[in-house]
Amino acid sequence: MIVVPPERLHKLGRDIFKAQGLSHEKAEFLVETLVEANLTGHDSHGAYYFATYSERIKEGHINVNAEPVVVHETPSTAYIDGKYAPGQITAKMLTEVAVAKAKEHMVSAVGAFNCNHIGRIGYYTNWAAKQGVVALFFANVGTPAVAVYGGVGKTFGTNPVSVGIPTGDAKPFLMDYATSVVAAGKISVARAKQAKIPLHWTRDKDGKPTDDPFAYKDGGWLLPFGEYKGYALQLVSELLGAVLTGSKVGIDPDRVPPSTNGIFMIAVDPGAFVGLETFREGVDDVIGRVKELKAEPGKRIMIPGEPEWETKDSRLAEGIPLPEETWEEIVSLAGELGLRVEDY
Amino acid sequence: MIVVPPERLHKLGRDIFKAQGLSHEKAEFLVETLVEANLTGHDSHGAYYFATYSERIKEGHINVNAEPVVVHETPSTAYIDGKYAPGQITAKMLTEVAVAKAKEHMVSAVGAFNCNHIGRIGYYTNWAAKQGVVALFFANVGTPAVAVYGGVGKTFGTNPVSVGIPTGDAKPFLMDYATSVVAAGKISVARAKQAKIPLHWTRDKDGKPTDDPFAYKDGGWLLPFGEYKGYALQLVSELLGAVLTGSKVGIDPDRVPPSTNGIFMIAVDPGAFVGLETFREGVDDVIGRVKELKAEPGKRIMIPGEPEWETKDSRLAEGIPLPEETWEEIVSLAGELGLRVEDY
Repeated sequence: MIVVPPERLHKLGRDIFKAQGLSHEKAEFLVETLVEANLTGHDSHGAYYFATYSERIKEGHINVNAEPVVVHETPSTAYIDGKYAPGQITAKMLTEVAVAKAKEHMVSAVGAFNCNHIGRIGYYTNWAAKQGVVALFFANVGTPAVAVYGGVGKTFGTNPVSVGIPTGDAKPFLMDYATSVVAAGKISVARAKQAKIPLHWTRDKDGKPTDDPFAYKDGGWLLPFGEYKGYALQLVSELLGAVLTGSKVGIDPDRVPPSTNGIFMIAVDPGAFVGLETFREGVDDVIGRVKELKAEPGKRIMIPGEPEWETKDSRLAEGIPLPEETWEEIVSLAGELGLRVEDY
Repeated sequence: MIVVPPERLHKLGRDIFKAQGLSHEKAEFLVETLVEANLTGHDSHGAYYFATYSERIKEGHINVNAEPVVVHETPSTAYIDGKYAPGQITAKMLTEVAVAKAKEHMVSAVGAFNCNHIGRIGYYTNWAAKQGVVALFFANVGTPAVAVYGGVGKTFGTNPVSVGIPTGDAKPFLMDYATSVVAAGKISVARAKQAKIPLHWTRDKDGKPTDDPFAYKDGGWLLPFGEYKGYALQLVSELLGAVLTGSKVGIDPDRVPPSTNGIFMIAVDPGAFVGLETFREGVDDVIGRVKELKAEPGKRIMIPGEPEWETKDSRLAEGIPLPEETWEEIVSLAGELGLRVEDY
């Protein structure tokens, strides 16, 4: 592991993307979402993507200059063509529009197609919740990786769901997870660390349980979480994220460009119901009471979002640990773009 | 087991509630939701409730003559005071308002408080999806039954979530489940059948795994499904179903009346995005392709909602099996109300 100060990773990443044609502002935002993923412990959605996105820019899948446009709009909905801009730029627009419309009309729904990979979806719901709205986010991932419940082989992407809910402080309640037992990136991280994985994460190419993180790459697949219940949610993310927005479905064998997201957000202003302040107080009350419950022996009760805040506090202070393989890729990429890592 | 023709159960149930003061129309609807639960295999939410609701009417918790009212409204939202009418009447209003507003303004959000138990939440999302909208439903259940992830003891209700999505035929995609591994009613059914239950459903009063369905009643508790992922969804149903709508939270030790629901529905018209017909075709395409996937040995791939349609077809033809205990309760209740079961 190499430990990198977050500020250093951010500036280096920003300049890596600026060197490939992104505006300063867009590069700042894109890298902000990736470094935030590392800070919150979601290394699978972090600086790991500096190299992957750069590859996609080179191959023409990500159009650094494209501007997403709203193609159809009503007072409380918007339908966005992402124009294959960097996915983060499309997701930022989607979130800002959803929040603004919810604040004006109490509820909104916004979807986007032609959208590249947007990073960690919790980034956007967390941001929306900080603005005082409840945000629900469904995304399909256009790379088959996960079997359906009872099925054999990679069928859908990791199809995440997220719900951000305002609290009384700057740390929203944040549900944010893949509908597979784990995100594919967590297996990449295990491979980079040469670590074994739990048996219920994947099947090998013959459908057998395995603790080898390489078996997934060698024809294996991920499983949906929670048996048929997670499977239903996996399909909901596919149907709302991809089908409703007119994006490519994960099951489609001819998906180009790689790993696109179909994204769909619903935002609700608590003002239509109990009101924002009463809502914040009620959420804090429930969270506070849950935190006071007795835990099982050897366990600790955490609120969704809480592990991320703790990791962020620690990594802001101590730096972001990156596998050497990831860091070397970044150094090599920077070099190709004429940047000297030692200047950062 | 006693096998009862659905029509007989429906007419008997309707007259049981009419005899307690419900209008013909309200009694018809309330019993329709309960018999539909039996027909679709969800016996935990079926005729079992004839006696339970009657008890609550007797105790004054369900007000048979109350009419729910909209207390705050915008073009795309409504906030309903259920007035402790039968929960089904409030949920019907909520669903009808949500669908109508979504059809007019593309997206809507409707919540209700002072709401009695509404039955199976999938009834309402299924109905909405048949009207051509996507419906998301979150409900808290005001009876602590389920531990939080890593916690000890009954904390929240079974807090169900449901998503109904239109397809090309009359059978919507239907995600509909408790955020516990199973609904509490399924344990009651196991008790009535004297059947053992799987070890991961409950803990006994000492926090130990058990296959005894009576251990849950004797100080035990249910577990959330899918570990921390189902737990997050359990909390979302609590925060949106109860806190956002100003309903009683499950964690509150002084809840009266018993087993109320806080209910919250979001409805989306696909017309704001790809359009309803394209959406229906896309959903059918994904479902069709999933059904053609290879299944694991000894397994069968089902679409959420499909087990229910199959059970309904079979029970419409062969009748509804009820545990003798449930049937005897209904017979005794009918007798108290001056109804002769043999007349049905």
